Amino acid sequence: MASITKFTLCLGFFLLLSFPLTLSSPLHLRSSKNAPRFLADFSRTINNSRPLKYSKYRYETRYFDQILDHFSFSDLPTFRQRYLINTEHWVGSGQLGPIFLYCGNEGDIEWFAVNTGFVWEIAPRFGAMIIFPEHRYYGESMPYGSREEAYKNVTTLAHLTAEQALADYAVLITELKRNLSAQACPVVLFGGSYGGMLAAWMRLKYPHIAIGALASSAPVLQFEDIVPPEIFYDIVSNDFRRESVDCFNTIKKSWNVIASEGEKNDGLLRLTRTFRFCKKLETADDLSNWLSSAYSYLAMGNYPYPSDFLMPMPGNPIKEVCRRIDSCPDGTGILQRIFEGVSVYYNYTGTVDCFDLDDDPHGMTSGWDWQACSEMIMPFASSKNTSMFPAYDYDYTSEEELCLENFHVKPRPTWITTEFGGHGFKSVLKTFGSNIIFSNGLLDPWSGGR
Amino acid sequence: MASITKFTLCLGFFLLLSFPLTLSSPLHLRSSKNAPRFLADFSRTINNSRPLKYSKYRYETRYFDQILDHFSFSDLPTFRQRYLINTEHWVGSGQLGPIFLYCGNEGDIEWFAVNTGFVWEIAPRFGAMIIFPEHRYYGESMPYGSREEAYKNVTTLAHLTAEQALADYAVLITELKRNLSAQACPVVLFGGSYGGMLAAWMRLKYPHIAIGALASSAPVLQFEDIVPPEIFYDIVSNDFRRESVDCFNTIKKSWNVIASEGEKNDGLLRLTRTFRFCKKLETADDLSNWLSSAYSYLAMGNYPYPSDFLMPMPGNPIKEVCRRIDSCPDGTGILQRIFEGVSVYYNYTGTVDCFDLDDDPHGMTSGWDWQACSEMIMPFASSKNTSMFPAYDYDYTSEEELCLENFHVKPRPTWITTEFGGHGFKSVLKTFGSNIIFSNGLLDPWSGGR
Repeated sequence: MASITKFTLCLGFFLLLSFPLTLSSPLHLRSSKNAPRFLADFSRTINNSRPLKYSKYRYETRYFDQILDHFSFSDLPTFRQRYLINTEHWVGSGQLGPIFLYCGNEGDIEWFAVNTGFVWEIAPRFGAMIIFPEHRYYGESMPYGSREEAYKNVTTLAHLTAEQALADYAVLITELKRNLSAQACPVVLFGGSYGGMLAAWMRLKYPHIAIGALASSAPVLQFEDIVPPEIFYDIVSNDFRRESVDCFNTIKKSWNVIASEGEKNDGLLRLTRTFRFCKKLETADDLSNWLSSAYSYLAMGNYPYPSDFLMPMPGNPIKEVCRRIDSCPDGTGILQRIFEGVSVYYNYTGTVDCFDLDDDPHGMTSGWDWQACSEMIMPFASSKNTSMFPAYDYDYTSEEELCLENFHVKPRPTWITTEFGGHGFKSVLKTFGSNIIFSNGLLDPWSGGR
Repeated sequence: MASITKFTLCLGFFLLLSFPLTLSSPLHLRSSKNAPRFLADFSRTINNSRPLKYSKYRYETRYFDQILDHFSFSDLPTFRQRYLINTEHWVGSGQLGPIFLYCGNEGDIEWFAVNTGFVWEIAPRFGAMIIFPEHRYYGESMPYGSREEAYKNVTTLAHLTAEQALADYAVLITELKRNLSAQACPVVLFGGSYGGMLAAWMRLKYPHIAIGALASSAPVLQFEDIVPPEIFYDIVSNDFRRESVDCFNTIKKSWNVIASEGEKNDGLLRLTRTFRFCKKLETADDLSNWLSSAYSYLAMGNYPYPSDFLMPMPGNPIKEVCRRIDSCPDGTGILQRIFEGVSVYYNYTGTVDCFDLDDDPHGMTSGWDWQACSEMIMPFASSKNTSMFPAYDYDYTSEEELCLENFHVKPRPTWITTEFGGHGFKSVLKTFGSNIIFSNGLLDPWSGGR
């Protein structure tokens, strides 16, 4: 997609380096028997197990009483939206100090705040205020008082949508500016991945509120038939192939080995031991999903420097995975090689004794699972010829069945493009969506959707 | 407001002539004791009593299953949205025939269709398809199966909002274009008054769906403190003063005469007889409201030719009102003069024996009353110095109380400007809202809000 870059900062490269790539793995579509698995699960794990201790970014935590339903007048309770704010560099309303607003995505906002160094780094140069509002239904910003209540059923989850989240940001910033008599101060949006989609959409829908947006790794075209559904897995696969064709081929061959091993007597037990799971595998598919997840996240986090965002990983982690897979002694079996490789993702620190599979088979605790079953309908497929993943076609019908089964919700597969556009997006951006930078690196699998 | 007129048709003058000016009268704010009275009541009356027989406009009536809540995934029933369609002049998708879409406003869509001659007149010249979708909660497009159910309470009325109506239009047109393989055909929006606001907002919010909008008499700035709250009644008053200063003064004096008459013994009975009401007046305020309504609608419909939209009226009806007021024989009392004048509005055909006041004191049957109590919060006041109406200040608190009392809904007075903009609208239009024509005549009282 052509970027409209009147907005004069040249941020692309920095942002690629400093922005985490989130969003779900499309993995769940491999088999409708498997529950969806998304990044939000990982974020929870990370936040629970490793408290945030990034003293270098200082912010105040505040809360704002937010309307749960902006677009109708239902008599619903409000909820407390959390936002992080830093005003130490702000030159004030008198000097029209800008406001940098990061559009919080599908996780605890502190997680995104401490992993978005770029915004913190440039704010002093612009005399900017920094605000990180949290996305509703994530982190502490829970309607109905608690995560448990908010995620209870289709009725309580109903208002977890992108449009409502954008309206939250619009209302919050308008109110905040009013209180600070800062109505004339320009607002610049930031966001990565889903947050990047929100930043771009917000600039399109609320041009009176924000003067520009830096939308990093934002696959706003990954809907309907706009881009080929194979593109995500093709890019992941290419990321591995460019490091090593052997590595690519080992992974590509592994799926059949896993499947046939799983069908043997005691095969699942042997797979459990090889991959050191804490509990016995129930199906070989569970293992394949666990592996596919790792490859996708490795591609999303394939930074040239060590990072600690998704999991602790070395710099150029895919290079490291392939080095381990390829450098096993001759005669090492495929499964053992795969285990050595994937440990770069799941156990780089070497502290894990045994691995747990996701213990939430219905995905009810993950907000992204809900979003992916309601409006974020992104078709994914895997090509027999170009992908290292098992081949599969996109099958909307089974996806819909899964959503009805898990969430009692019927997806609206054409809604996002109706609401935000998509087909012919370039022409809209040319005449309308000024000051939006779409940045990404070409190794990023989400670059296919931009 | 400066119009951005890249859209090359020069339509302003035609539209002023052919477009009805609707929207509510702001009258209800004169006294919080009085229930709001809006145009939607009149439209109902008109449609019930005078069937539409405009054979010159041919259209097919169709229905579309519409989602009641576009912005959340509540398990609500869908509703049947009515739309009128004419394809006889359409040159087809192969030739990229344009689609003219009128954004239905607060009333039966047939009423707007037959009173929007301009769209019908220009369609053949452009080889255009014409679509008139009806606004939800009006005409036949009733959620919950019937008007009675839809207007039952705050819960059923909750989804009567402008944002939901815009989404209706977006979904309908997207689906229709898909079915016709007409995705590449340009859509041009039309709308007058509230429908004009919808057309402008739709172009801003859905630039990927419509390439331009002709927003006629659309007071998109009549919110918060953007324009002075006195502007509406000042323009109405000036419309009368420019015809005759005597007429203006007679009306200005009449309010005190009515009030003091109402306080006398049998005063209400005398007022009832003078103004030929079918039932005895309960308060003098009811009469004042009835008169104020007429003056506002006369200004809204002050066309230079006879019209039959609001009520049957002669051309230049204000000139005629003032002629009657001024030409009474010397010695005629103020009240008799006022009655002669207002009869131009309420009884131009001379067929009315006695007049009924609105018999719906809680305004529950009028959708616009609900909208004016939820998001369409337009401040109105009347200036002691420049208006012919009784002086009053804008008092949001009493307005809010009235809404809580009548509808159990708390208005959101800053929501429309947050959602659609308003402050600094010009700068947004310069860089964003291309191809929107805001047209109006300066006699139109709603021109103050543009």
